[in-house]
Amino acid sequence: MSASTLGTSVPQVNARSKVMGRAQYAGDIKLPGMLHGKVLRSPYPHARIVHIDVTQALALPGVKAVVTGADGPQVLWGVHHKERLTLARDVVRFAGEEVAAVAATSEDLARDALDLIHVEYEELPAILTPEEALDPQAPPVHPGRADNISHEIRFERGDVDAAFAQAHLVHEATYTTHSQYPGYMEPMASVATVDADGRLQVWTSTQSAFLVRARLAAVLELPVSRVRVIQATTGGGFGGKIIEDANSLIAGLLALRTGRPVRLVNNRLEDFLACATSVPEGITLKLGMDREGRIVAKDVRIVADCGAYSGLSAEVMHVSAMRSDNMHRNGNVRSHATLVYTHTPPHGAFRGFGGAQMLFALNSHIDAMARKLDLDPLDVHRLNAIERGETSVHGWKIGSTGLVECLAQCADAIGWSARRSRNDAVHGAKRRGLGLAAAMHVSGNRTIGDWDGSTVMLKIDEDGRVVLHCSEADMGQGAMTMLSQVVAHELDIPLAHVHVVAPDTDSSPWCIGSLASRVTIVAGNAAIVASRAARGKLLDQASAMLQTPTAGLQCAGGTVHVRAAPQRGLTLAELARAHIWRHGGEGIQVTGTWDARTEMFDKQTLMGNIAPAYSFAAQAVEVEVDIETGQVALIDSFVSDDCGKALNPQAVHGQSNGAAAQAIGWTLYERLQLEDGRIVNGNFADYTMPSPDALPMLRSGIVESNDPHGPYGAKGASETAILPGAAAIANAVFDAVGIRITDLPITPEKVLAALRRRAEPRHA
Amino acid sequence: MSASTLGTSVPQVNARSKVMGRAQYAGDIKLPGMLHGKVLRSPYPHARIVHIDVTQALALPGVKAVVTGADGPQVLWGVHHKERLTLARDVVRFAGEEVAAVAATSEDLARDALDLIHVEYEELPAILTPEEALDPQAPPVHPGRADNISHEIRFERGDVDAAFAQAHLVHEATYTTHSQYPGYMEPMASVATVDADGRLQVWTSTQSAFLVRARLAAVLELPVSRVRVIQATTGGGFGGKIIEDANSLIAGLLALRTGRPVRLVNNRLEDFLACATSVPEGITLKLGMDREGRIVAKDVRIVADCGAYSGLSAEVMHVSAMRSDNMHRNGNVRSHATLVYTHTPPHGAFRGFGGAQMLFALNSHIDAMARKLDLDPLDVHRLNAIERGETSVHGWKIGSTGLVECLAQCADAIGWSARRSRNDAVHGAKRRGLGLAAAMHVSGNRTIGDWDGSTVMLKIDEDGRVVLHCSEADMGQGAMTMLSQVVAHELDIPLAHVHVVAPDTDSSPWCIGSLASRVTIVAGNAAIVASRAARGKLLDQASAMLQTPTAGLQCAGGTVHVRAAPQRGLTLAELARAHIWRHGGEGIQVTGTWDARTEMFDKQTLMGNIAPAYSFAAQAVEVEVDIETGQVALIDSFVSDDCGKALNPQAVHGQSNGAAAQAIGWTLYERLQLEDGRIVNGNFADYTMPSPDALPMLRSGIVESNDPHGPYGAKGASETAILPGAAAIANAVFDAVGIRITDLPITPEKVLAALRRRAEPRHA
Repeated sequence: MSASTLGTSVPQVNARSKVMGRAQYAGDIKLPGMLHGKVLRSPYPHARIVHIDVTQALALPGVKAVVTGADGPQVLWGVHHKERLTLARDVVRFAGEEVAAVAATSEDLARDALDLIHVEYEELPAILTPEEALDPQAPPVHPGRADNISHEIRFERGDVDAAFAQAHLVHEATYTTHSQYPGYMEPMASVATVDADGRLQVWTSTQSAFLVRARLAAVLELPVSRVRVIQATTGGGFGGKIIEDANSLIAGLLALRTGRPVRLVNNRLEDFLACATSVPEGITLKLGMDREGRIVAKDVRIVADCGAYSGLSAEVMHVSAMRSDNMHRNGNVRSHATLVYTHTPPHGAFRGFGGAQMLFALNSHIDAMARKLDLDPLDVHRLNAIERGETSVHGWKIGSTGLVECLAQCADAIGWSARRSRNDAVHGAKRRGLGLAAAMHVSGNRTIGDWDGSTVMLKIDEDGRVVLHCSEADMGQGAMTMLSQVVAHELDIPLAHVHVVAPDTDSSPWCIGSLASRVTIVAGNAAIVASRAARGKLLDQASAMLQTPTAGLQCAGGTVHVRAAPQRGLTLAELARAHIWRHGGEGIQVTGTWDARTEMFDKQTLMGNIAPAYSFAAQAVEVEVDIETGQVALIDSFVSDDCGKALNPQAVHGQSNGAAAQAIGWTLYERLQLEDGRIVNGNFADYTMPSPDALPMLRSGIVESNDPHGPYGAKGASETAILPGAAAIANAVFDAVGIRITDLPITPEKVLAALRRRAEPRHA
Repeated sequence: MSASTLGTSVPQVNARSKVMGRAQYAGDIKLPGMLHGKVLRSPYPHARIVHIDVTQALALPGVKAVVTGADGPQVLWGVHHKERLTLARDVVRFAGEEVAAVAATSEDLARDALDLIHVEYEELPAILTPEEALDPQAPPVHPGRADNISHEIRFERGDVDAAFAQAHLVHEATYTTHSQYPGYMEPMASVATVDADGRLQVWTSTQSAFLVRARLAAVLELPVSRVRVIQATTGGGFGGKIIEDANSLIAGLLALRTGRPVRLVNNRLEDFLACATSVPEGITLKLGMDREGRIVAKDVRIVADCGAYSGLSAEVMHVSAMRSDNMHRNGNVRSHATLVYTHTPPHGAFRGFGGAQMLFALNSHIDAMARKLDLDPLDVHRLNAIERGETSVHGWKIGSTGLVECLAQCADAIGWSARRSRNDAVHGAKRRGLGLAAAMHVSGNRTIGDWDGSTVMLKIDEDGRVVLHCSEADMGQGAMTMLSQVVAHELDIPLAHVHVVAPDTDSSPWCIGSLASRVTIVAGNAAIVASRAARGKLLDQASAMLQTPTAGLQCAGGTVHVRAAPQRGLTLAELARAHIWRHGGEGIQVTGTWDARTEMFDKQTLMGNIAPAYSFAAQAVEVEVDIETGQVALIDSFVSDDCGKALNPQAVHGQSNGAAAQAIGWTLYERLQLEDGRIVNGNFADYTMPSPDALPMLRSGIVESNDPHGPYGAKGASETAILPGAAAIANAVFDAVGIRITDLPITPEKVLAALRRRAEPRHA
C-alpha cells in the first residue's frame, strides 16, 4: 500500500509545534544580552524635520542606541522606485513614517526613550487623496518628480471603440475600493544579531528570506554574504511580509550599531502603521455586451493610490488593469491606470494582489448588465468564460480552467436556481438575496524576475528519512506540508519521514519566496525533480547491490526492491547508508530546480504567457439585508476553488474559507479610517475584522481541473478564493433590496442611504 | 595578481571571533528556560550498585530530572565493542563512571542535587593493572567475556627469527608509557534542546558532528533524522572529542526527559574523569641490526590498558603495533599486542593515535643500538628510512617522504654535528646532551569505514562570495582556514570572500570528522573538486554572456574574462546573479566529493595501502640535566614536519610547536596519578602541563615533500610532530648523563635513581 498522502487531508506538518506553543516566532527568540528596539514615527502626514534632539533619550540608563535619519542608512529602497529611507531625513511623507529608532535593555525603556526624543517638525500641507495629488498645481510628494504619478499603464487591444459602437448594451460605472490591513495573527517581528564572525544574522517573519537578505545588504551596505536571514515561524503574511516594511531593516541597523542582539516586534498599532495595506483603487468600468450577454468591449480607467511610497503598488495596479481580461474571450480591451502618490501610509501587496479590486467592479458590472439583459448572471459568466486550450487577449495560455465547474458548484450549493423564492423565509424588515461572482488568478508569475523557478535540496539521511531545504516560505499556508507530501509521495515514504528546514540563506537554495501563488506549482515541481533525482540515486545504489538493472527495480513502501521478486529489496535506510559507504563518504544529497516554461510579457505590448497555470474560483452567497438598519448579514457562502488538484483538501478548504472570511471582512466590516491622514483605528477593537459570530458557517468546494504543468495537476490555492467575495455580496445585496453599492465597504449607512435615494423621487 | 594565500601565512579565519570573545562555545549558549546538568560519578573503581535513592534529590526545588542507569538508556555503545551504558546500572567499572544525571534550574542546584542522591554501593575487588587483568584467575571486568583481553593483534612478515639469528646486533628492552590527558582549553560541553518539531537538537564541542548524531540516535533510540547536531566552536580536541565520552549523550537524555534545553559543561575535574586519556602501553621491543646499523628484524610485544571500556583503544593499539614498521625498509617484523580491561578510567584516541608510544620505544632503541655500533644515530635513521616510491612491509605506498630532509633540518638546527662539545657551556652539576628521533603518521585512513572521502558544498552568493558547508570539524587546528584558502585559491578571490559554516547535520554534507590527520588531504581535495565545479558553472555562464568558448576564458581576480581581451569580463558577482536569473532561479550551488584511492587492509593479512599519503617528522632537542636534582630542562627543540606542502606555514608551525609542547609535557611533566584506581590530580595545579616558563623557545621547520595525492601536495600537519618528542628527550638525557629512561615520564626521581644505580657497583 502506498504511503502517499497526495489528495488526502493531512494536518499541517508544523501544526503540532504551533498548537503546543513550541514554534519559535521571531518574537519568541531570546538571545543573551538582547536589546529591544522601538521606532518613533511621524505624527504628521507631511512635515519638515527641523531638528531632532536625542540627548535626553541617549542619557536614559539602559538606552544603547538612538538612530535618526541623519545618521541612519542613506541608501534608498523600494521595489519599483528606490525612494524610501529607512528612517526619514529632512521630511516625513506619511503619519507613521519611521523617524528614529531606539535600542534599549527592555522594551519599556525603549518606549520611554521614544518620549525623550524631541523632534521639531514644521508641518506642511498634505495631499491626502488621489484627486488632490493629480491636481496639476499640486506639489510633488517626491521632490524631483514632475508630478505625483508614480506609475501609469495604458494598453488597448482589438478595436474597443468600434466594439462599443456595435454593442447591444453598454454600461459604465465607477467603483471605489478601500484599503485592507492584512490582519495576520503575528505582527512583523525580527531579531537581529552580529554573529561571531561579524556577520549580520536576522531571524524574521517574512515571506521571502532571500529578498529580505538582498535588501538588508543593499541598505546596510554589506555584501549579501555578510548577511544571514533565517525565516522564523511566520504567523501569516497575506502579502504584507514580502519586502515593503522596514522592520527587519531597523532591527539589523540597531544590531550593527550596538553590536548586540536586538528584538523588534511591532505591537498591533505599530504594525498598522508599518505595514503596507492593500491598494485603494477608483475604477471606472465600461463594458459592452451583445444581446446574449457576450462581452464585446471593455474599457477601464483606474486611479490607484500608493500612499507616500509605491512599494509593490505599481505591480498591484498592473494586475487590476489586466488580469481579469484573461477570464473572458473578449478581444477588445483598453485600460488606463494611474498610480499616484499621496501623503498617506503606503499601500502594496495584499492577498489577491490587485485582483479583488477589479473583480469587484467587473462582477458587479456583469450582474448589473445581465439583469438589464434579463439574463441569468450565471449564464453570462458561463458564456464569457475562457476555455482550456485557449489563449487569452493578453497571450495567456489557459492550460486548465475549472471556472465553469466552479460556477456550477457554488450555484448548486447556494441553491441559485431557486433564488426567486428566498424571501418567503424571512419576515419583517429582512430581505434575502443571492449573489455570484467569478475570479481568476495566476499560479506563479514570470514577471517577478523574468524567471519563475524554485529549487529544492534533499538529503537522505542514514535512516532513509529526508531533510528538505527550500527557501519558499511557509507563513501558515502550508508550503512545508505540501513539500513534504510531494517528497513522501515520490519516494513512497511516510509523511513524517520528511523534515522541512526553515529557509536560511546560508544553507537553503536561492528562492524568490511565497507570493503570486507560486509555491505549490513551482516548488512542488522542484520537489518532484529533486525527489526523482534522489530516487535515481537510490535505484542506482540498489541496482549495484541487488545486481538488477534499475528498470527491474521499484521504489515503494520504504524500500527499493526487485519488481519480479518483491522480497528481494533494501530499505531506504540501508541504501542511504550504503551510498555513503560506497561513494567515499558522499551521502545522497541532490537539488532539483524547476522553472516554469513561461514567457516574460513584452514590455511594449504587455503580451506574454506569464504563468505556468491559472487558477479560477467562483463564489455564491446569500445575504440578509435589514432595510430598517441597513445591516447586511451573510447567511451562506460557498466558494469554489479550481486549484487544479487538491494535494491536501483540508488545506485548500482552509485557504478558501480564510480567503472568504478576509473578503467578507473587506466588503462588510473592515475599514482603515484615516483622519487628516492619520490612521485612527489601528487596533482590533476599532478595525473590525469579522469575528466568528459575524460569519456564517463558511463552505467551500474544490474543482480539480488538472493543470498540465502543475505538480500532479495542482495550481496555487491561496489567493483566488479571496477575489469574488466582495462582488458576490454586493450582487446579493442588489438581489435582496435592489440597490447597488459600488463603494466599498458596504456599510449600513450606505445601504440605508441608497434605500432612501431609491425611495425618493429622482432629481430631474 | 593572484589573490591566493596558498603557501603564505594567514591568521585563522576564526581567530578574530575567538580573541574578541565572540565565538560561541557550547558553554556560551544560553537558551530560554535552559536547565543545567550535572553528573554523579562512581567513587569506586569497581562496585555493585545495590540501591539508588533519588527521592531527596528530586524533591529539591528547581530539580527537574534525575536519571539513573535503571531508568536511563539501555542501549550499549562503544566504537569497537558495544559495552558501555550511558549511566551505569548494577555495576560500576571505574572511579568516575557516570551513575546518575541531574537537570536543575541552576548549576549550583544541580550540584546540590548530586549530594542528595544516595547510592548504596557494595565495593568489589578492582583490577587496576594489566598484569592483574591478565592473571588467568582474574574475574572478567565485563561479564560474559572469557578473560580481560579486549583485543589482540598478531602478525609476522618475513622470517623474523632467521633475521635475528643473522643480525650483527640484537637489542631488547621494555618501555612503559603512561596516559596523557588531552588538556584542551575547553572542557567537553553540550547544550541540548527539543526543538519545535520535537527533534533533539544538540550543540556540542566535537571533532565529528555526524558521529555524535549517529550515537545520539542509536543510544536514545531516535531515527538519525530526528536528531540535529551542530558543532559549537570547539576549543581543542586532540582526539578526546571524537566519540568516546558521554557528555552529549547525557545532555541529550536530560533534554528529552525534561523537554527543556539542558546545558552540560564539564568542569576540569569532571573532564579529567569523563575524557578518554591516551592508552598506556608496555612495549617490549627487540630489534636486530646489521653492522652498518640496518634494521633487519623487529619483534614487538605490547600490553595496552584500555581501562574499563575499550572505546578506540583497539585501533590505537593497532597503530602502535604496526605503523612505525612502515618508516623503515626492514621486511622482518612481528607484533603481538594485547589490549586488556582494567577497572580504571577508559583510555582511547589521543593526538598521534598510538604512534607516540611505539615511537618512544623505537627511537630510544635506535639511539641505544647506534651507540653500541658506534654509529651516529642520525646516520642510522637515514640508512633505514623508507624512500618515495617504495612500498612498505605492510603494503603502504609511499608517495612522498621528507623524512631524511626532516632529519637533516632538525639536526642542522640543533647543531648535531657539534654535539660533543656542548658540555663546555655548562658548569657545576649541569650536563647537556642532544637527542634525535624520527616519526611517521598517516594522512587519512581508509580503515575508518572502508572509505576515506569528504564532501564540500559551495554556494556562490550574488555578491560573488562563497559560503562553504562541510562537516569536517575545526577544533582549533585550522580546518576552516585551510578550506577557505583552497576555495579562494581555486576561484582566485580574497580569503575573506569565503565563509565556512560550522558543521550542522541538517545542512552540511555527511563527513566523518576531524581525526587521523585526514582533513587537509581529503577535505582539501574535496574543496578543490567543489571549487572547480563552481568555476565550471561560472565559466559556462560567462561563456554564454561573453559569447566566447570556455577555453578562451579565465577565472582570475574575481572575474571571468576573455584571455585574449582581459578587459572583456564579468565579475563573479555578476555571473552568480546572472546564473540565478538565467537558470530559473537556480543559484550556483555545488558539491564536491573526493575519496582517497586507497585500499582497506586485508583483515587476515593486515596488508593494504590505507592512506592516500604519509606524513613524516623528526625532532632534535638539547637538554640540560642537573645531576644533583635529577631535573631535566629542555634547552632547545626543533621539530621538522614533512606536511607535503605548507598551505599556511604559520598554522603548520603552530601545530608543530603545539605538538612539541604536548610531547614535552608527556615526557617530562604530565602524569595522571591514580591511587586505588582513582584519579587524584584531576586539575591543572596538580596535573602539570608545561607552562611557557617550562618550555624553551620552540622552533620548528617545514619540509615540503609535495605528495602526489595531496591538495597542492599537502598532507596532514597536526599529529606527526607530537610523535618524536619523548624519544628525542630520552636520547638527549642519555647523551647528557649516560642513563636511559625507558619508563615515562622522565621525572627527577627516576633520573636520580638511575644515576645512583649507575654509580653503584653492579649486583652480581
